[in-house]
Amino acid sequence: MYAIIMAGGMGTRLKERTGAMPKGFVPVAGVPVVEQSVRKLFAAGIEEIIIGTGHCADWYERLAARYAGITLAHNPHYARTGSMETLACCASAVKRSGSGGVILLESDIIYDAHGLTALRNDPHENAVLASGATHGGDEVYLEQDGAGFLTGCSKDPGALTRIAGELTGISRVSKATLDAMVACARDSANPALDYETVLARVSASGPRRVFVRVIARYLWQEIDDESHLARAEALAPAIAESESLLKIRREVLLNPGPATTTDSVKYAQVVPDICPREKEFGAVMAWITAELSRMAGGDRENGGEIETVLFGGSGTAADEVMISSCVPDTGKLLVIDNGAYGARMAKIAEVYRLNFEVFRSSGFLPLDTEAVKAKLLEGRFTHLAVVYHETTTGLLNPVPELGRLCREHGITTIVDGVSAFAAIPIDMDRDGIDFMASTSNKNIQGMPGAAFVFCRSAALKAVKDYPMRNYYLNLWDQYRHFKNTMQTRFTPPVQTLYALRQAIMEAKRETVAGRYARYSACWDVLVRAVKELGLEMLVPEAAQSKLITAVIEPSNPAYDFEVFHDTARARGFTIYPGKLAGANTFRIANIGDIQVPEMERFTRVLAAYITGLAHA
Amino acid sequence: MYAIIMAGGMGTRLKERTGAMPKGFVPVAGVPVVEQSVRKLFAAGIEEIIIGTGHCADWYERLAARYAGITLAHNPHYARTGSMETLACCASAVKRSGSGGVILLESDIIYDAHGLTALRNDPHENAVLASGATHGGDEVYLEQDGAGFLTGCSKDPGALTRIAGELTGISRVSKATLDAMVACARDSANPALDYETVLARVSASGPRRVFVRVIARYLWQEIDDESHLARAEALAPAIAESESLLKIRREVLLNPGPATTTDSVKYAQVVPDICPREKEFGAVMAWITAELSRMAGGDRENGGEIETVLFGGSGTAADEVMISSCVPDTGKLLVIDNGAYGARMAKIAEVYRLNFEVFRSSGFLPLDTEAVKAKLLEGRFTHLAVVYHETTTGLLNPVPELGRLCREHGITTIVDGVSAFAAIPIDMDRDGIDFMASTSNKNIQGMPGAAFVFCRSAALKAVKDYPMRNYYLNLWDQYRHFKNTMQTRFTPPVQTLYALRQAIMEAKRETVAGRYARYSACWDVLVRAVKELGLEMLVPEAAQSKLITAVIEPSNPAYDFEVFHDTARARGFTIYPGKLAGANTFRIANIGDIQVPEMERFTRVLAAYITGLAHA
Repeated sequence: MYAIIMAGGMGTRLKERTGAMPKGFVPVAGVPVVEQSVRKLFAAGIEEIIIGTGHCADWYERLAARYAGITLAHNPHYARTGSMETLACCASAVKRSGSGGVILLESDIIYDAHGLTALRNDPHENAVLASGATHGGDEVYLEQDGAGFLTGCSKDPGALTRIAGELTGISRVSKATLDAMVACARDSANPALDYETVLARVSASGPRRVFVRVIARYLWQEIDDESHLARAEALAPAIAESESLLKIRREVLLNPGPATTTDSVKYAQVVPDICPREKEFGAVMAWITAELSRMAGGDRENGGEIETVLFGGSGTAADEVMISSCVPDTGKLLVIDNGAYGARMAKIAEVYRLNFEVFRSSGFLPLDTEAVKAKLLEGRFTHLAVVYHETTTGLLNPVPELGRLCREHGITTIVDGVSAFAAIPIDMDRDGIDFMASTSNKNIQGMPGAAFVFCRSAALKAVKDYPMRNYYLNLWDQYRHFKNTMQTRFTPPVQTLYALRQAIMEAKRETVAGRYARYSACWDVLVRAVKELGLEMLVPEAAQSKLITAVIEPSNPAYDFEVFHDTARARGFTIYPGKLAGANTFRIANIGDIQVPEMERFTRVLAAYITGLAHA
Repeated sequence: MYAIIMAGGMGTRLKERTGAMPKGFVPVAGVPVVEQSVRKLFAAGIEEIIIGTGHCADWYERLAARYAGITLAHNPHYARTGSMETLACCASAVKRSGSGGVILLESDIIYDAHGLTALRNDPHENAVLASGATHGGDEVYLEQDGAGFLTGCSKDPGALTRIAGELTGISRVSKATLDAMVACARDSANPALDYETVLARVSASGPRRVFVRVIARYLWQEIDDESHLARAEALAPAIAESESLLKIRREVLLNPGPATTTDSVKYAQVVPDICPREKEFGAVMAWITAELSRMAGGDRENGGEIETVLFGGSGTAADEVMISSCVPDTGKLLVIDNGAYGARMAKIAEVYRLNFEVFRSSGFLPLDTEAVKAKLLEGRFTHLAVVYHETTTGLLNPVPELGRLCREHGITTIVDGVSAFAAIPIDMDRDGIDFMASTSNKNIQGMPGAAFVFCRSAALKAVKDYPMRNYYLNLWDQYRHFKNTMQTRFTPPVQTLYALRQAIMEAKRETVAGRYARYSACWDVLVRAVKELGLEMLVPEAAQSKLITAVIEPSNPAYDFEVFHDTARARGFTIYPGKLAGANTFRIANIGDIQVPEMERFTRVLAAYITGLAHA
């Protein structure tokens, strides 16, 4: 879904402020109004914002550098053209005609984000948001017909017959309607046209009618002059209050997934009911798999070929997909077990009676790749299964090194990437990974319920004739069916996938590298505190993932994990017990939508509890 | 989560209206205010509403008869006691101390449901909702300390030092705080106390402090006198408009699941982040499984013992759980195949190389149970697998008859109840069903992503030592792990389960019988239209489920399913192609949150398309 922000104007009525700055950058409540709009649009599920620039376009270039997902379209004639010309400059950047349509906005408005929800849920092809009387001065009135569709607009209410309300500067149109607007403007040959005039003309002439969605008490303000700006400042707290009513109570999950999510990912689950066999939903899944493939290093333009296959289930389901689907009866599998998740893959291999052996290694010391290599070659193994990041302890296995080794010797690699993917930068081609499992609820920061298997295309083709050892979790059938039909074999977790789509957009905007940097910064804060408190970590720092940290529990007999857990929980932090037999640890994950100040706050909770023990 | 509505008062200032009626029944915008409140509370996830009655309690008895989920607690001394006494009468009906707390409300208010969201997401143990100035007359002002906690309340603003806002009559308290209020009132020995006075006293004396959540522009009105009533009528449209901003676009799914859901189920997915290994979430899953068991006929009080085992996945995953987990190597399975889902169970049995045979029967004629019986006994089968309701065609199999037959002969029954459960009344004990699969997204009207297997306890115990043929979908392991730990083995689809919880509450309130009656009424409308149009149904009426109808496509060469589908979709209805090889049908399901008028509207769309063909 796209949004277009028309930002070409000169802002002449605010010229003391906008002489060297576009109007959208006038701050209200301390934040440039266009930046407020950008944040609301991204949170509402917009993938790409196209900003039509003109006056002082360099300001928008800097904005676009800070927010991935913004595309700029310059209107070189901004000084002598109207907003329609700027909109026309943007229209060609709308490439797909998704069912969600295109949100059109003016750059100089503040508004309640509830309006975006209302607009998105309006059932008409096109809708323009109108408010009741604002008495703001300079209002544009909208006229509607008996069925509620737009027939005209004017600043002169006397020129209209049935006034629906005031134009808020926010609408939603289909791509076809946008194209019709561009064509209509071209025909008129009047470069000074406002977009709303054209919208009304297109609507009035049919068949692309525009419904007027009236919200009588809508909170919004356009900022054309100083008095508007003062009104906007006065209105900003009311808008913030209205939006705050939907804020979800903040709980910071420091358990190793499901991870903390943004409110926008949470609300992305709330969508109109849809049958997942509809083409529209097929396109959503195709988008998700293509984007996930790209994040795993697949990029057709550069030759990398990764296929992502979606399943309904947990990360373990995806592990089972790989183990049960990717090893032929003639194959021989080596499973590296240096934690609970490696052991689990071995258990799955056992259940399916594969020809396999287990390579056991310490749960907290770095893996000896030379020893693995010797074992692989001696045993003439055809497949290697390894956990990229052992969630048990936070130990990072040297997967790229193992991958290159395996490639050299023609060994297929099966990687549990559940808690590595989307944080550790991975390129399956480069790193020699043939199959990798992950899930929607770890570093990608979506909701649990969807799992996926990344496959290098050549490796995937090889599994076509392997025996089918189960039905629901079979990789090839799932892949082939989606490829042929754009539908999953079985009902997918629809709402979880919509949330995953939003999570992917947010991950893309942050970038995997940026996300790992944020996670690492949180980890630094944690580790510093752990050391200052004299606590020890299970895994040597150099071998740690910087995603999950297993801390050895204090020997003080007053220490009680349950008390520690409940103390932290009461302060909004969820922590997790250790999992490695033989070592008493607690675990702190720093994945998900968490920020350094929150981790700092947690370290104070940790310090209070630990130092309290000493005085107990 | 509970709500308590204090409704004992006499409404003396509205006495012309309330002489023979409680104040809560005064209508605003045509609906009694307390009934508006009840609907909002149920939609917000309240499981049980306790109404404290007094004056004209019989009105509430009739309300409770119409809304399952309302419990009444009578205050016999209502004429001479305050609201605190009524609250105390209700307090003992709060049995569990859930983490959600108890919402307290006055019966005579109208309010914006956004306030319930804000209250639920407030991080404090207790919170009272305050608004800005309403100038309503008779306001109660709330006083707060520097940290925002309630320290006093009064109708006299001069008596307070730091006024936070006006009492709206909506709060949320923990059970411990409620108990503290009751104790405080008892100590004071003043029966005329208002609950808000006690709330303020408890908060001021600590440790059960009450945060004042101020929403300056909150839309609400208490109705104490005629002028309030006039204000309430004037305010009602604004409240309706505010709530309408969150309404999700209505799409009626006439495909055989996922089914249409209510907005309240959609929004139930939006919850604070939670680690599914927390006890609090274990309790949610325990509630879900207990309620589902009850709906499948399990009710420990009456001796029926059903265990419900949850899985993350689709209905097919649950089918695979049963087929792969419930037949020992020494067993012999007969699979009845009279549609795609029976064939799928046979395919799963084949994948696992079970000792099985298929009993094929017509996809549209009733099953010959005598022939099945003969086959079962001749072949000395130990297990029978059958689809209760063949989603392929709408054919209903005689499962209770087969179940009783199997019980008589010691044969274990495995039933795909995916699209039967929660519509067709089922009692597994009575009907001789040992194992039954269903899913969150069919008649229970939740979101896809969770599947469940119902097990008669005795039958479940028997599978303990059966071979483990897969890992993720193993029934016994999944059952035992949850039983021992109140956690699922693998990350469950958390948000889908919260939606399922809401869906179960809504199903309970409607009752399975009531739901089937509504579905059947929709089916009647559909079938009447189909017959009037001269179309034929694939399955004889008597053998139909009344849930899904396969209609034979018109022979007119102008008929094109895709055109028909797109026409219907543009009008908000999603229909589905047929699935039975050899018969050209389209399918109309009438499951989910649909009402008769919507089905009537669809039949007009159907009629327009079909009669249009004749003129083409």
